[in-house]
Amino acid sequence: MKLSIREAKATDCHFILNMIKELAEFEKLAHQVSATENALRENIFGKEPKAFVLIAELDQTPVGFALYFYNFSTFLAKPGIYLEDLYVQSKYRSHGVGKALLKSLAQIAKDKSFGRLEWSVLDWNQKAIDFYLKIGAEPMNEWTVYRLTESAIKKLAEI
Amino acid sequence: MKLSIREAKATDCHFILNMIKELAEFEKLAHQVSATENALRENIFGKEPKAFVLIAELDQTPVGFALYFYNFSTFLAKPGIYLEDLYVQSKYRSHGVGKALLKSLAQIAKDKSFGRLEWSVLDWNQKAIDFYLKIGAEPMNEWTVYRLTESAIKKLAEI
Repeated sequence: MKLSIREAKATDCHFILNMIKELAEFEKLAHQVSATENALRENIFGKEPKAFVLIAELDQTPVGFALYFYNFSTFLAKPGIYLEDLYVQSKYRSHGVGKALLKSLAQIAKDKSFGRLEWSVLDWNQKAIDFYLKIGAEPMNEWTVYRLTESAIKKLAEI
Repeated sequence: MKLSIREAKATDCHFILNMIKELAEFEKLAHQVSATENALRENIFGKEPKAFVLIAELDQTPVGFALYFYNFSTFLAKPGIYLEDLYVQSKYRSHGVGKALLKSLAQIAKDKSFGRLEWSVLDWNQKAIDFYLKIGAEPMNEWTVYRLTESAIKKLAEI
């Protein structure tokens, strides 16, 4: 099967939303998904894109995606790539699709002279972790992300 | 002392770089800092800002800063705020400066109807962790960030 990676178009929003939902199922976090096709269209394909998407195709059929945005390293004083979601439909795995998506992101980071390409992984996802270590990724084991969600944001803003 | 928070200006780059270096010292990561004033000026105050900075002042003297950018949640299909650095000079701590910076960020997130305000903390920084828990932040304990740095990016891009 012919594997190819391309930039997403606005007409991919239905597929992208399905992928986000499948990934959330896999992560056992489906209850947290409130994304809609319209919100994706506005934020990814609107006047000021807030995120970017690559689509992986096998024989021209979309089978996976990578969604990323630019983060910023103060130590390097320059942007980097943060990969928010990477997902390949289960029946199309082991064809190198995930690796091809990551390679495309590395190419983008290299072309832009970025110093970092980062993402997060669930600690129980050993198959993914093994793969990430194999391509040279380092776990930031000393760090934990803290999150304020909407109600805590409002509470803090109003103190 | 009068505490105030304002948006940074290009003339703050010298102060911002000093703060980045002091924070790196505190984190025992000073050897990783290659940032320059020029790179900060270009990426924060240039035509396409890659990050945003708030400055905290006590009696109009800068004593701390917060540097953030917009991340993107696929589950919510909208952006959020990621706080990359928050730092208050040691002699000015316990005046509520850090909390005032976080409150300003919460206000920005609230005004923009964002669903998340996130940052990372070193696991040994218990004083910071206690403070974050107190304001309602949740640790994303199940997740670990993986990072490719420049050499690994190049290697992956060229496979």
